[in-house]
Amino acid sequence: MSNKYVYNFGDGKADGDASMKELLGGKGANLAEMSNMGIPVPPGFTISTEVCNQYYETNGEYLEEVKQQVKQGVEQIEKIMDAKFGDTENPLLLSVRSGAPASMPGMMDTVLNLGLNDTTVQGIIKKSNNERFGWDSYRRFVQMYGDVVMGLKPENKEEEDPFEVIIDQVKEKKGVVNDTDLAADDLKELVKLFKDAIKQKTGEDFPTDPWEQLWGSIGAVFSSWNNPRAVKYRKLNNIPAHWGTAVNVQVMVFGNMGDDCATGVAFTRDPATGENIFYGEYLVNAQGEDVVAGTRTPQPLKASRKTEQSQQALEEIMPEVYQQLEGIQQKLEQHYKDMQDIEFTIQKNHLWMLQTRNGKRTAAAAVRIAVEMEEEGLIDKNTAVMRIKPEQLDQLLHPMFDPKAEKNVIASGLPASPGAATGQIVFHSDEAEEWAANGKDVILVRIETSPEDIGGMDVAKGILTARGGMTSHAAVVARGMGKCCVAGCGELEINYKNKTMKVKGGKTYKEGDWISLEGSQGVVIEGKVPTVQPELSGTFGKLMQWADKIRKLGVRTNADTPKDSTVARNFGAEGIGLCRTEHMFFEGDRIKAVREMILADNVEGRKKALAKLLPYQRDDFYGIFKAMQDLPVTVRTLDPPLHEFLPHDEKGQEEMAREMGISSEEVKERVESLNEFNPMLGHRGCRLGISYPEITEMQTRAIMEAACQLKKEGFNVYPEIMIPLIGTKAELADQKKVVIKVAEQVEKEMDVKVDYKVGTMIEIPRAALTADEVAEEADFFSFGTNDLTQMAFGFSRDDAGKFLMEYQNKEILPDDPFQTLDQKGVGQLVEMGVKKGRSTKADLKIGICGEHGGDPRSIDFCHRVGMDYVSCSPFRVPIARLAAAQAVLVNDK
Amino acid sequence: MSNKYVYNFGDGKADGDASMKELLGGKGANLAEMSNMGIPVPPGFTISTEVCNQYYETNGEYLEEVKQQVKQGVEQIEKIMDAKFGDTENPLLLSVRSGAPASMPGMMDTVLNLGLNDTTVQGIIKKSNNERFGWDSYRRFVQMYGDVVMGLKPENKEEEDPFEVIIDQVKEKKGVVNDTDLAADDLKELVKLFKDAIKQKTGEDFPTDPWEQLWGSIGAVFSSWNNPRAVKYRKLNNIPAHWGTAVNVQVMVFGNMGDDCATGVAFTRDPATGENIFYGEYLVNAQGEDVVAGTRTPQPLKASRKTEQSQQALEEIMPEVYQQLEGIQQKLEQHYKDMQDIEFTIQKNHLWMLQTRNGKRTAAAAVRIAVEMEEEGLIDKNTAVMRIKPEQLDQLLHPMFDPKAEKNVIASGLPASPGAATGQIVFHSDEAEEWAANGKDVILVRIETSPEDIGGMDVAKGILTARGGMTSHAAVVARGMGKCCVAGCGELEINYKNKTMKVKGGKTYKEGDWISLEGSQGVVIEGKVPTVQPELSGTFGKLMQWADKIRKLGVRTNADTPKDSTVARNFGAEGIGLCRTEHMFFEGDRIKAVREMILADNVEGRKKALAKLLPYQRDDFYGIFKAMQDLPVTVRTLDPPLHEFLPHDEKGQEEMAREMGISSEEVKERVESLNEFNPMLGHRGCRLGISYPEITEMQTRAIMEAACQLKKEGFNVYPEIMIPLIGTKAELADQKKVVIKVAEQVEKEMDVKVDYKVGTMIEIPRAALTADEVAEEADFFSFGTNDLTQMAFGFSRDDAGKFLMEYQNKEILPDDPFQTLDQKGVGQLVEMGVKKGRSTKADLKIGICGEHGGDPRSIDFCHRVGMDYVSCSPFRVPIARLAAAQAVLVNDK
Repeated sequence: MSNKYVYNFGDGKADGDASMKELLGGKGANLAEMSNMGIPVPPGFTISTEVCNQYYETNGEYLEEVKQQVKQGVEQIEKIMDAKFGDTENPLLLSVRSGAPASMPGMMDTVLNLGLNDTTVQGIIKKSNNERFGWDSYRRFVQMYGDVVMGLKPENKEEEDPFEVIIDQVKEKKGVVNDTDLAADDLKELVKLFKDAIKQKTGEDFPTDPWEQLWGSIGAVFSSWNNPRAVKYRKLNNIPAHWGTAVNVQVMVFGNMGDDCATGVAFTRDPATGENIFYGEYLVNAQGEDVVAGTRTPQPLKASRKTEQSQQALEEIMPEVYQQLEGIQQKLEQHYKDMQDIEFTIQKNHLWMLQTRNGKRTAAAAVRIAVEMEEEGLIDKNTAVMRIKPEQLDQLLHPMFDPKAEKNVIASGLPASPGAATGQIVFHSDEAEEWAANGKDVILVRIETSPEDIGGMDVAKGILTARGGMTSHAAVVARGMGKCCVAGCGELEINYKNKTMKVKGGKTYKEGDWISLEGSQGVVIEGKVPTVQPELSGTFGKLMQWADKIRKLGVRTNADTPKDSTVARNFGAEGIGLCRTEHMFFEGDRIKAVREMILADNVEGRKKALAKLLPYQRDDFYGIFKAMQDLPVTVRTLDPPLHEFLPHDEKGQEEMAREMGISSEEVKERVESLNEFNPMLGHRGCRLGISYPEITEMQTRAIMEAACQLKKEGFNVYPEIMIPLIGTKAELADQKKVVIKVAEQVEKEMDVKVDYKVGTMIEIPRAALTADEVAEEADFFSFGTNDLTQMAFGFSRDDAGKFLMEYQNKEILPDDPFQTLDQKGVGQLVEMGVKKGRSTKADLKIGICGEHGGDPRSIDFCHRVGMDYVSCSPFRVPIARLAAAQAVLVNDK
Repeated sequence: MSNKYVYNFGDGKADGDASMKELLGGKGANLAEMSNMGIPVPPGFTISTEVCNQYYETNGEYLEEVKQQVKQGVEQIEKIMDAKFGDTENPLLLSVRSGAPASMPGMMDTVLNLGLNDTTVQGIIKKSNNERFGWDSYRRFVQMYGDVVMGLKPENKEEEDPFEVIIDQVKEKKGVVNDTDLAADDLKELVKLFKDAIKQKTGEDFPTDPWEQLWGSIGAVFSSWNNPRAVKYRKLNNIPAHWGTAVNVQVMVFGNMGDDCATGVAFTRDPATGENIFYGEYLVNAQGEDVVAGTRTPQPLKASRKTEQSQQALEEIMPEVYQQLEGIQQKLEQHYKDMQDIEFTIQKNHLWMLQTRNGKRTAAAAVRIAVEMEEEGLIDKNTAVMRIKPEQLDQLLHPMFDPKAEKNVIASGLPASPGAATGQIVFHSDEAEEWAANGKDVILVRIETSPEDIGGMDVAKGILTARGGMTSHAAVVARGMGKCCVAGCGELEINYKNKTMKVKGGKTYKEGDWISLEGSQGVVIEGKVPTVQPELSGTFGKLMQWADKIRKLGVRTNADTPKDSTVARNFGAEGIGLCRTEHMFFEGDRIKAVREMILADNVEGRKKALAKLLPYQRDDFYGIFKAMQDLPVTVRTLDPPLHEFLPHDEKGQEEMAREMGISSEEVKERVESLNEFNPMLGHRGCRLGISYPEITEMQTRAIMEAACQLKKEGFNVYPEIMIPLIGTKAELADQKKVVIKVAEQVEKEMDVKVDYKVGTMIEIPRAALTADEVAEEADFFSFGTNDLTQMAFGFSRDDAGKFLMEYQNKEILPDDPFQTLDQKGVGQLVEMGVKKGRSTKADLKIGICGEHGGDPRSIDFCHRVGMDYVSCSPFRVPIARLAAAQAVLVNDK
């Protein structure tokens, strides 16, 4: 025998172990492990994932070796169980279950009670001394086999299972309500009717040969690896198709042979809170599916967990078996050193463990379990830190819907910014502000948002857009505000004029209607849904402290206001990595001065208008610097093209003309002359500062006056002035000269020195390619990976939504490159930028301030290329801290 | 003496030679060379360019060494000439002239007759025995010194020179018309009046000390290196500011001492035609400036060149001097091995050579001279090929204005496509077609053009746009058509509604008005200007053959029609490097089918519409393949975003709605839904083919059906199907699969095999970064450096015009990166793409099809990185052939 494809287990030993998940799947590997540990598992064997791939390559054929090994596997079970597969007197019944390397709960198929036919059923009846049980097992098997292997289960969920239809007919005929009320004869009739239905629907007979049944079931499980449900699940969870599933064949154990039987599921700790208390449910005289189905109410395992007097804990009715289970669960947790999710069946007072695996848990539970296990000495701090998926922390930081509330999802979009929100629909930003001022909760609904909408976004409970991706304006700003946002919801047709929002093929909602948004899933829900605000526990703080000790990357935040700065600082931010000054341009009267500047024909006119902006900007910086005292604050000079500050609709233009005392023709002309074919690649960033140095001068003055003032008041401030959109060394040199000139002037005027730096964004491919030159002029680099991704891919983030989804579906792109840094392509530019930059200045300070700064996989990359810090929106700071620590644990020896 | 700053020459020897242009300037180096050759030059010395830089560094101070060496230089002249600087009896007079390393004709200052004052003038009168000559020399000196050194020359050209005003007054008083009619006394009076004017305007006296005069003049020449005219000229001709100018101080020789004196300029061959015949003009009894001034008509040197009987050739009136000159010119040409531009003065029958340099010539002359010199054995073929600036050839290929015609330039823009055109203004493409159909010559004037304008552009004589850069739609298409185009003419305000074109601060022109365009200079001229069509000579063909033998790069063309293909082939194109299929989508009824496809909601609808396009496309390809038989033709699949095919104005939308039998609301909605924020980075290129594989299928079918048909007819065709805008290997794999599937189908249907290739554009930075992966799916790469430049720089070529000019003026960018490949940045991506591509496939065929494929400096780069070919617009093919040969000669040992 050259290759091993089938791995036996049972009777205190096994061919495999827990480390072989790739080959045996999670379930199979853990069954082997438990068997090795001497824990009672129903004996059986696992057909490896390799066979799954063979199955697809050969269109359902098996190697002779595989067939041989399966036969030997069955013989091994026969030997242990002292029963015979297909035997009339003492028949062995089998279960056939899927088991992939990654958990895919309920996605694939299962066949139970396999081996039954008209003769073996008699053997079961004899063995169990229970005719009803025998026929019930048989009819369950025929139904399952018909559904799963012979394909009678309707693909469309709306259609009813043909077997259920037959059961209903028989029940009606018999005048009974519950399946359990059917007698042995009724069940026998069901078997016949089921077989007839199969013959009628498929033209084939239900197979009576147990071996044919076994191979049919194995094939069905392998086939189910590629059912649409499973494919979709894999895509959502990044599980590669080539992994394949294993198949576990085990002897059937029955929890439904009588009142000395039971079946149940349990967690070694509370999966909701993380509390270290054995937690589970069971049903007497039932099969596993009954616990899930919910037709009978499961009972608690532990007496102390009873919520009603009438409940019967397993601890009370089967104390010995309970003690055995309690011992096993402790043993498993000690062995696996993690909270376990276990399944068991008690057959005639004999406990069988069907499954153990690391249990899914809420974020709060994950944190608590990890920290407490460390305190118990079960795991070390590094392991505890590795236990939490950084993204999970989002759950802890944002409000969420009451899990018990009903939700009528009407549309779905991109999960642009996590959290939950409920409010009344408003379509215009100014109206949102009005409504909010009147104490109303509003959801701002827009086709897309622009900087003009900042006010409305700020007061809204949540933001919903029909267009735009994960780094669209709405998404970026909402994340910055820690506000729930669903973006790019293509199913919505928004009509500003009629103030309506129509769901394609669905209802129309109008201004004032209530809707709710769930930002982590990106769904829109009709009506109000109550929200709850999670609380940060002490264990969270402890875990974060451990992470901080491990990580090498600094974690800063992207914040534009003192409020955001404070929030981020409370979340552990160590400075600001990106303070966008343009957001400050929209508030109140400022926009008037901005527009006056844009309309000015000459330097003098612009300077006059800028002088009006200066005090506002200075006050903004004063507040931000103060909130971030003792920490560095990177301020980016004006970045967006000027036309973003002008109104684009006729009404707005007329209003502006009136306010400025000029003709609306003039406004229109100016808007038109500033109009660009590709504003992303147009007159923005440092190109503005080069055309209009007076803008850079004003902004530098505002920064330096605020910094000098604070310095005089005794605060430590570390402004870092950052020039955006640099593509050549000469651009940076030009703007740096302007900055230094003004900075030195202000220092002289105010007679105080400030420790300031001048650096640049690296967001244009050419800047990365020539980073050695650019570094000659820079005190620091900050990678703007949003724009870098746009230009390296040639994707406009505002437009790419249209085809990016398609690209991911067609597997042309593994991820949305705006969410997770494309390490293969864009990453090369980043790495090149770091290396070349440091080749000129070994100690060049380097960070990232694109959206990727808050994405764990991207943070891992930033760590590996040797950046000094990442910067992300305030609510992602804890995620970044944890991800940065994990990057050390994963990459550094 | 540690450093040498002053280089003497004269009397058959010299400190320098012709190789020292950098230090001595062109004039100084050649004076030294001539002196070494024993050719009579007025003795003198050259102050090196190093002193010019010192002059600027020290704000006009000189090192002691320099002063010493100048003094010694003057002494050397005194010795040779046996005269004394400042002497009353036998005064030495000097000339002070600029001389930069690169020729900058007339840009800098000159002072002649230096050394005269009230006493030395008497010496001159005595020596020349000519009082009038003495006073005339003196008044010329005072005038020149006053203008140049003391700054009396008005900066504004409109203002009159104050000295000329005085001359006019004196002439009026005396009642004479010509300067020559003024008597010695009048001239004496002028000297006095000039000095008074100087005193009055500057408060300073005219200096009488010759040494003060000398240092003043030297300083004035150095200063003139940075006068606005010179700075502008340097910028236009890429001459670095740090080169500086040298100063040449020589003894004065006079061509105006009497009738045994003369002065002239000559070329060793005809600079207009290149004919090998000594060619020049002279004036008896005159100074050099008189030849240029045009107040007297210069006479021919050679008797055979007389055009009128009355003319007096130098050959006739001074046969001996003429023979000497003839001998010298031959000696100079043999020595320099190039056509020389020489200046001479005859002082009392003594010939003095004042200058020799390689002569400027027309393109036609350049070609003829180079080829004939090779034939004469003067130079070898490689030298001949190096002698022509590739860009010059443009002159030979396009119509040009009659050089003698008067031109009233009203505005200037970018020299987008060379040639000259004259026609009536038309503002709309359809009207252009109408007018042209009626036999009118039209110039299409647009704010910018779009693919919809193809028809109008095709019939127009020339194209003028107010917006867009060197690679704007108008520019690219016009160059492809070999049609004259002036683009991005920002001074124009075009009003489509009123059908007017207003020049800012100037006149308004309306539909039907005549204008003319000069595309090599980018100027707009009022009214009609006659054009002439140059003819290609036999020497041109010979030169091209030599170039072809030398070059290693293939030269293909970018052509979209059989006509363009034929033109390009006649220019020597070796295939098509880029055939854009979208240009074929606009003609006639096709656009209807295209629009039908865009409006279709589903695959079936699109396929139906595409089926209508198929025959058109097939016919197009049939014609192109046939025109390019035996040569490869690279066809790019559909590239532009679909909205480019829809009308964007209300009228057009209504018309389209009527034609398609749908509501204009529907049209509007579709246009809106296709609208993109940054179309450059939007749903275009392979992204279209991935979303709508049926488009790629139709195009492949059209290509393959045409190719198979021709194959059957006995033609050799080599289609290369090129997928645009690839950023990942997976995109190419997806489209390649579609192409191969259809290609094989067609081959099977038509029962013939075609040698086709499938490759990709490399125009997205990520494609270059991951070229090793992309190459796995590609038969060839073609660098689309237009888009690569856009994305690497983050410049939209349609918008960057606004600030690119500013960038060049501020020296932030040395060149327009859309004209000349940015080797430092974008070039890295190209090099990376070549290396990585070839690391996967050593024999990967690699070319370039961006506009840079026709730019000589970029072609040099393409050669160096090892590309197989360049592709450019038909009219640039000869330029590319020559540039490719020069790249070999310059780079390969």
